[in-house]
Amino acid sequence: MLNRFSRPTFLAALLALALTGLVQLQAMAAPADPLPSWNDGHAKQSILDFVAAVTKEDGPDYVKPAERIATIDNDGTLWVEQPVYTQFAFAIDRVKATANQHPEWKTQEPFKSILSGDMKAVAAMGEKGMVEIVAATHSGMSTADFNKEVKEWLAVAKHPRFKVLYTDRVYQPMIELLDYLRANGFKTFIVSGGGVEFMRAFADKTYGIPPEQVIGSSGVTQYQMWDASPVLIKMPKVLFVDDGPGKPEGIDHFIGRRPIFAFGNSDGDKEMLEWTAACEHLCFMGLVHHTDAVREYAYDRNSSVGKLDKALDEATAKGWTVVDMKNDWKTIFPSVKAAQ
Amino acid sequence: MLNRFSRPTFLAALLALALTGLVQLQAMAAPADPLPSWNDGHAKQSILDFVAAVTKEDGPDYVKPAERIATIDNDGTLWVEQPVYTQFAFAIDRVKATANQHPEWKTQEPFKSILSGDMKAVAAMGEKGMVEIVAATHSGMSTADFNKEVKEWLAVAKHPRFKVLYTDRVYQPMIELLDYLRANGFKTFIVSGGGVEFMRAFADKTYGIPPEQVIGSSGVTQYQMWDASPVLIKMPKVLFVDDGPGKPEGIDHFIGRRPIFAFGNSDGDKEMLEWTAACEHLCFMGLVHHTDAVREYAYDRNSSVGKLDKALDEATAKGWTVVDMKNDWKTIFPSVKAAQ
Repeated sequence: MLNRFSRPTFLAALLALALTGLVQLQAMAAPADPLPSWNDGHAKQSILDFVAAVTKEDGPDYVKPAERIATIDNDGTLWVEQPVYTQFAFAIDRVKATANQHPEWKTQEPFKSILSGDMKAVAAMGEKGMVEIVAATHSGMSTADFNKEVKEWLAVAKHPRFKVLYTDRVYQPMIELLDYLRANGFKTFIVSGGGVEFMRAFADKTYGIPPEQVIGSSGVTQYQMWDASPVLIKMPKVLFVDDGPGKPEGIDHFIGRRPIFAFGNSDGDKEMLEWTAACEHLCFMGLVHHTDAVREYAYDRNSSVGKLDKALDEATAKGWTVVDMKNDWKTIFPSVKAAQ
Repeated sequence: MLNRFSRPTFLAALLALALTGLVQLQAMAAPADPLPSWNDGHAKQSILDFVAAVTKEDGPDYVKPAERIATIDNDGTLWVEQPVYTQFAFAIDRVKATANQHPEWKTQEPFKSILSGDMKAVAAMGEKGMVEIVAATHSGMSTADFNKEVKEWLAVAKHPRFKVLYTDRVYQPMIELLDYLRANGFKTFIVSGGGVEFMRAFADKTYGIPPEQVIGSSGVTQYQMWDASPVLIKMPKVLFVDDGPGKPEGIDHFIGRRPIFAFGNSDGDKEMLEWTAACEHLCFMGLVHHTDAVREYAYDRNSSVGKLDKALDEATAKGWTVVDMKNDWKTIFPSVKAAQ
């Protein structure tokens, strides 16, 4: 064997090794920016400082990887929630798609208004109408069939303003943040008021968050045998509402640990942020403030979707990080591939 | 630099490399037994064969690591459940420890019988009495205080027959199985009828299963502010019963994926095993059959704790793996350190 190592080959190999070392040294000297879609400023710096502090092994704020739990809201924090929650757009489309199986809907509200295209009337019915629409379209089928319906819809439905798939209207800076957290040993969870099964249909592919790390509102399911095969049937009965105080309750129920990092964008996230702020370690609380009417939407205290009022006051008073979307985000959306 | 590589040094280095290779080859030829507490036989072989099949990358039964979900019952599957469920022993002790705060218990059943030491009368009250005892001792405090109580109790309470800590009465062969599954890319979950918060107090240290991978029965919690600090208060109201059909419902609710590996020991695990058996991949269903009255306990069809009847028939009919504790397990319990 030794004979085959000629002296020049050996020298060349050493040279190659030395060059690789140099390249690595250079990479260490100027690390790539982990958050390239964030403009330099307080918000970005507060994230970088927090992650550096909790991952510094001999530092006073070090947190073991197993305890690096990050909980992040979905609607308005990871993807667009205007003009209506995506899941509600799905429910409206399901009403239209299945109307022929429900002749009674022609005369029964809120379905009648949906079918006649009177969305103003639907909106006027408020939460009560919305709950009825979601209950009617999210129950009576197996969990497997529902998952299939959501996936098929997400593959073709377009956002009314941007004319792209809903999963293309995720926030690029937040995708980078999720990657950055995971690269630093964090376990990333979605904690959202949205339906858990709806989110699980795309969270893995879109955010890199597996189903077992998605926490959301849910209905009761019932185990049944159909033709000697077990199925889980979605019942028209609420099991758990993961919003407001339901967020810390859901975090405790599903995760059983307190997060050290939480991000939201509305008053529905207030209690999750308070719960996180009471952690024993250094902890991070963040809010996305929608301030960019040109590139996305501008809304806060008076919005019917994603209202941000009390949580904004609390964040200001307590020094939590508030992202000013217009100024803090260089890019808002990922570039959409032509093939899509 | 090159001058420092004398020819003998270079040869010695090559020799060292070659020897290392030999040692590695030898290790490959006789790998350590991953399940040393299991006797050779059908049960052990069925586990080894299953894990080999789903991890063989170019094989027909290969399953990606992210989908290698294993769900395992706790009471009677991972640790002793006789003569009563450990959590019930905890509840009884809590009644005694807090009786001075509840003078009404002196005349009120089932508390009166507990305080007078008449456990036969308590047993005669059946499930109704048990639910009342658990509700009274598992609510009215914060989740943090409850967790502390459980940990303190587990640190001192002894099993009535074996006179060791309850966490020392785990099954060594199952601990090895959990390690073996994780070493092969599985994510191990507990799916138990026991209380989720009770189990989370010891599952991480005892089984290597973190809180977010423990699924169990649970009560409603309520977010409250105490002296400007958020707390979650345990309410005397059941949220979810993770037993029987509740097991596949809980698996779907918490994990959102179907397991490919499930292990239980009683009729309460029947639906979890059926749900697993309906998987799209090769899947594994196992039952621990308690057949060793000398080293542990022998019970099945007529036991009030951990009754195994219908699930045993189904396992036999469908060829699921049934572990005969007496014959399949070389060792039952881990050796308890003298210091404990």
